[in-house]
Amino acid sequence: MYRPDRLFPADPRGREVARRIYGRVRDLPIISPHGHVEASFLAENKRLPNPAELLIYPDHYVTRLLHTLGISMDLLSSSAAAGADHARASGEDHARASWAALAEKWKFLRGTVVHYWLSVQLQEIFGIEKELSPQSATSIYDQIEAKLGAEDFLPRRLFDRFDISVLATTDSPVDDLGAHEQLAKLPNFSGQVIPTFRPDPFLEPCQREWPRYIEQLSQVAEVDCGSYGGWVAAMENRREYFRKHGAKSTDHSHLTAHAAPLEGAEAQRIYTAALTGTASREEADALRGHMLFEMARMSADDGLTMTLHPGIERSHHQATLQRYGPDTGHDIPVQLELTRALKPMLNHFGTAARFKLVVFTVDETVYSRELAPLAGFYPSVYIGAPWWFLDTSDAIQRWRSAITETAGFYKTSGFIDDTRAFVSIPVRHDMARRIDASYLARLVTEERLTEPEAHEIAHDLVEAIPRSVFNL
Amino acid sequence: MYRPDRLFPADPRGREVARRIYGRVRDLPIISPHGHVEASFLAENKRLPNPAELLIYPDHYVTRLLHTLGISMDLLSSSAAAGADHARASGEDHARASWAALAEKWKFLRGTVVHYWLSVQLQEIFGIEKELSPQSATSIYDQIEAKLGAEDFLPRRLFDRFDISVLATTDSPVDDLGAHEQLAKLPNFSGQVIPTFRPDPFLEPCQREWPRYIEQLSQVAEVDCGSYGGWVAAMENRREYFRKHGAKSTDHSHLTAHAAPLEGAEAQRIYTAALTGTASREEADALRGHMLFEMARMSADDGLTMTLHPGIERSHHQATLQRYGPDTGHDIPVQLELTRALKPMLNHFGTAARFKLVVFTVDETVYSRELAPLAGFYPSVYIGAPWWFLDTSDAIQRWRSAITETAGFYKTSGFIDDTRAFVSIPVRHDMARRIDASYLARLVTEERLTEPEAHEIAHDLVEAIPRSVFNL
Amino acid sequence: MYRPDRLFPADPRGREVARRIYGRVRDLPIISPHGHVEASFLAENKRLPNPAELLIYPDHYVTRLLHTLGISMDLLSSSAAAGADHARASGEDHARASWAALAEKWKFLRGTVVHYWLSVQLQEIFGIEKELSPQSATSIYDQIEAKLGAEDFLPRRLFDRFDISVLATTDSPVDDLGAHEQLAKLPNFSGQVIPTFRPDPFLEPCQREWPRYIEQLSQVAEVDCGSYGGWVAAMENRREYFRKHGAKSTDHSHLTAHAAPLEGAEAQRIYTAALTGTASREEADALRGHMLFEMARMSADDGLTMTLHPGIERSHHQATLQRYGPDTGHDIPVQLELTRALKPMLNHFGTAARFKLVVFTVDETVYSRELAPLAGFYPSVYIGAPWWFLDTSDAIQRWRSAITETAGFYKTSGFIDDTRAFVSIPVRHDMARRIDASYLARLVTEERLTEPEAHEIAHDLVEAIPRSVFNL
Repeated sequence: MYRPDRLFPADPRGREVARRIYGRVRDLPIISPHGHVEASFLAENKRLPNPAELLIYPDHYVTRLLHTLGISMDLLSSSAAAGADHARASGEDHARASWAALAEKWKFLRGTVVHYWLSVQLQEIFGIEKELSPQSATSIYDQIEAKLGAEDFLPRRLFDRFDISVLATTDSPVDDLGAHEQLAKLPNFSGQVIPTFRPDPFLEPCQREWPRYIEQLSQVAEVDCGSYGGWVAAMENRREYFRKHGAKSTDHSHLTAHAAPLEGAEAQRIYTAALTGTASREEADALRGHMLFEMARMSADDGLTMTLHPGIERSHHQATLQRYGPDTGHDIPVQLELTRALKPMLNHFGTAARFKLVVFTVDETVYSRELAPLAGFYPSVYIGAPWWFLDTSDAIQRWRSAITETAGFYKTSGFIDDTRAFVSIPVRHDMARRIDASYLARLVTEERLTEPEAHEIAHDLVEAIPRSVFNL
Repeated sequence: MYRPDRLFPADPRGREVARRIYGRVRDLPIISPHGHVEASFLAENKRLPNPAELLIYPDHYVTRLLHTLGISMDLLSSSAAAGADHARASGEDHARASWAALAEKWKFLRGTVVHYWLSVQLQEIFGIEKELSPQSATSIYDQIEAKLGAEDFLPRRLFDRFDISVLATTDSPVDDLGAHEQLAKLPNFSGQVIPTFRPDPFLEPCQREWPRYIEQLSQVAEVDCGSYGGWVAAMENRREYFRKHGAKSTDHSHLTAHAAPLEGAEAQRIYTAALTGTASREEADALRGHMLFEMARMSADDGLTMTLHPGIERSHHQATLQRYGPDTGHDIPVQLELTRALKPMLNHFGTAARFKLVVFTVDETVYSRELAPLAGFYPSVYIGAPWWFLDTSDAIQRWRSAITETAGFYKTSGFIDDTRAFVSIPVRHDMARRIDASYLARLVTEERLTEPEAHEIAHDLVEAIPRSVFNL
Repeated sequence: MYRPDRLFPADPRGREVARRIYGRVRDLPIISPHGHVEASFLAENKRLPNPAELLIYPDHYVTRLLHTLGISMDLLSSSAAAGADHARASGEDHARASWAALAEKWKFLRGTVVHYWLSVQLQEIFGIEKELSPQSATSIYDQIEAKLGAEDFLPRRLFDRFDISVLATTDSPVDDLGAHEQLAKLPNFSGQVIPTFRPDPFLEPCQREWPRYIEQLSQVAEVDCGSYGGWVAAMENRREYFRKHGAKSTDHSHLTAHAAPLEGAEAQRIYTAALTGTASREEADALRGHMLFEMARMSADDGLTMTLHPGIERSHHQATLQRYGPDTGHDIPVQLELTRALKPMLNHFGTAARFKLVVFTVDETVYSRELAPLAGFYPSVYIGAPWWFLDTSDAIQRWRSAITETAGFYKTSGFIDDTRAFVSIPVRHDMARRIDASYLARLVTEERLTEPEAHEIAHDLVEAIPRSVFNL
């Protein structure tokens, strides 16, 4: 169980200051400008699934840790997920077995952020007062189930209870955004649920499925993408569609941050070759870099904030990918380079009036070396909050420590929960507020900020900064 | 002189908690699953050599620091070491001159881990109460000498006094392990002294001496290693020999972590070429990667834990290498890559039931970026304790900070002393326990763990975790 | 406003110890062995310019932050700087507009080192008691202007008031050092103002202007540099000229640290080709590496300390470079490699009696991985103080934490202000003393040093260490 002063500094004066700073921001509404909850989840507003479907399977933070502690992926995915040839005990039995596995490994998660997030969810969302253990597993499962049956736990009721002011989803360019439209029309739901334009596979000519994606794009955009000019027009068209549906940003995750323009004719030539499968790997990579550059150009035009999170080797373990699909906990970071990769983009758009670029990374080495210096010069560049493997207490403090003296607080993105786990949203934002309060309290006790300055910054980190970066 | 609360946190509450956590583990027996003390040292049980032979020459941590502060390597190696053409004052005069050099530079070592280790050894093993200085050098030398003459200071008596429960040595595959056999048969010595299979030079076809190593292997294993199949059989044979003599792990230190299988025929072809010196550098590197992959395959079969510590450029200074040999303080780390290098190995064996892989590194950048994410998914992967340049107070805390929130405490290796300096073993393990107590105390005071949880983890770090990782 | 205990640790005991340590060094004279103030500034001893010319334009730390917060570079450079085709309101109006821009963005600089430096300058040098803000901007500008008109604020009066004992400038090899001569002859100025030999463009055969630089060198050195031998002779000649004018070091900033000798004939061949523009890029790079190696060879001969600060991509934003010139805040670090790059140089000169090499870096990853291990073995290698993006409170503590346990305090360079902003010198040195006091206080409170040891180290860091590293 975690206590009210959790994550605050150990020294008494720092703790007092942190408490006061946190007290000023604790109850502010949540702004979540990037995440992976689906709009349909809120539009449909169905009863939440059982505790395993809710808290384990969709959250690759949880499944990877249980997997490394010896639990089979079979127990870490819903019975439907593994495909027909791997039939298992279905429904509740399977869910209870998964929950028991979590309870069995629970003590080995101590000190991890997953232990923190799940504990605080159990405590604060579900009112569980016992520690999870093999002994308490069943009764806790039952308690959660009982709660989930109540009206109060329907998705939109939770959305209100969590006091979410803006929630961004992540969507394919070919999505019709019907669920978003539906939510916007609901008379008694005031939440702002906005789409995010995420075109990754449409920018990867080296991947086998790319021509299929381009075909879909042609259809949905009603633009012939048989030539490069069509691709540009279709993308602009879909971005505009998203913008009209409330989108504020586009999101991009490729292996590297490389983005550089090709000569016009060259882009056309490679594009055509790629569609027929005759582009070389080098050409396809160059085209991807060109397309990413084009996305920046479009952002400078239409004002959608561009977010990048490069540097991840996706699906490291082939056997798990084949059986359980992507996003199952084995995306592993690689070293990142930004200074050279972003140079062409920033030379073209780095001082453009409407362009905003938020760079996320899980390679901590670029914080002080590349990211803070870039964000410390280019008006368009913002330092994305630590993310994925780094959205944790010590890691967020290391991040602030690495960037603040060079770039300050006001060239950062505000907290990004990036989560697929809806119920974890308030816990994650609360954690970020606590950690920022602790960091600010240290600066106050070290006489590097006054306490009123720290209060103002803490408030801006939660409200003014994300609103400004994402044009909310 | 260091005091009883050394290495504990500065804040009063953190210090109290750290003291209590440390108090629970201070007197637990030492488990040392990887190090460089030789079995013959204990089997022969001879009087320890003079203070310089004991505390300076064999410890490249000490010699490199004195060298950089201006002491000649001649004074930092035993009179025999420099070869016949560099005759010097022999015996005691030389040792006393070395000791005087240490005393002269002593104050410049303040703040280093070497200052800590040597001080605490002098205090706690030898009962020295004065600070080392040019003035006190002679009398301290004499006091140590007097102690060393006593029965109590014979190696096996110290082994018992240090309360070492398991000590692993590091041995060549062609070693007959006679000293280990001898120790196992001793009636009044209950220490568990186990060999470790360290085949590095047998896996380096690009090195000139490789054919000679292979010839030795043929002889000792009684298997013709003239073809690749013979190499495999001989390696399996020697691993089995080691396993029967108590070995629990194999140890590997190559420049990179690259390990990928070649097609069977290709391995044979390059192997044969390498034996006759006609393999290219690229081929030899590919064969090394293949052989390292084979070691993983054998570990998945025979259950020997595989430890890797790549990323060191050995013997940076040629003149020192030529005159004083390897391991003389100028092995310098280089940048490490793990995500891609280990992918083939982990795709084959990452979820194999018996496979355990411990990865050590002195490149801190991979902790949060690659190592914790890999250990946070693959059941086989363990995060090796910080090592070599990083087995120090701040460095160990940085390591815990970088990995714990992602991978927890239970996918780490337990402390590894990795030392050649027998008398430093208890001091190093004690230091590790203090630092872990301090780290845990911080988590307790920041309300991220309860104190009983911290006590349990501290105990597991010293006992259950190394036993489990090394199958002890 | 910053208070007397600024930058000290938060815990009460640590703070007391830090105060005492700082108290011992606060008033020691300033030794500044590397910086960018010009000798002519002191020789001419003219009234300081207006607050914007003094505190904003020359300091790219300030301009980059204001630029990223949306201020045009036009307002961040003197009216003359932008060239005739960009005429603007000149003189005081322009300066007041710049100052107003600083005041407008002031609150967004909170937490940055720039906020700290400027605040403390306003407080302690100019006696300003109000916080800068849009409301107070004009009156603070006026107060500074009033001070600047006083005799007390003439450059040499400030030099004395700042108690600068040694100030090194940074100079081209073809500079005649007339201003240094002038200063040395002044009867009532006892300051030691020494030149530093900075030959960067003379070592870059791949740059278009290189032949022009070589021509200048020929003229000034009165040596024909038409062949490689001439270049060597001219360089030796100019180093000797600098040495006779008091120079203690040479300074080198190339993209990488690569330095390796070419065969004599090869260097001649490429040199000749480069002069006629027919050397390839690879050849030109190899020649640069050779020339840098030669600089090390000359340092081993003439005893000038060699300082390296590689790893910066200069002038990232072309449009800003073209309009406002270099050093305008968009030099961005890249990843650095030292272990291999410095190997040839250190194998030749790493143990040479007179050779001293100080390596600075803004890539923190090399601290513990490469730099501390190199400085922990080679007597010639010193770890340069954190610099540029890293000369800040947390960053300096990270640096000490990364290197001290491996290499101690006595293989570091002492603080380097590296500044172009004369009036910031005392503030920067004071900050370094405070941060070192805080770091040392932590070691004392963690029982890793005694307080008397910490006092001695703090004093040596300010006085004995820079004197020794730079032969002062």
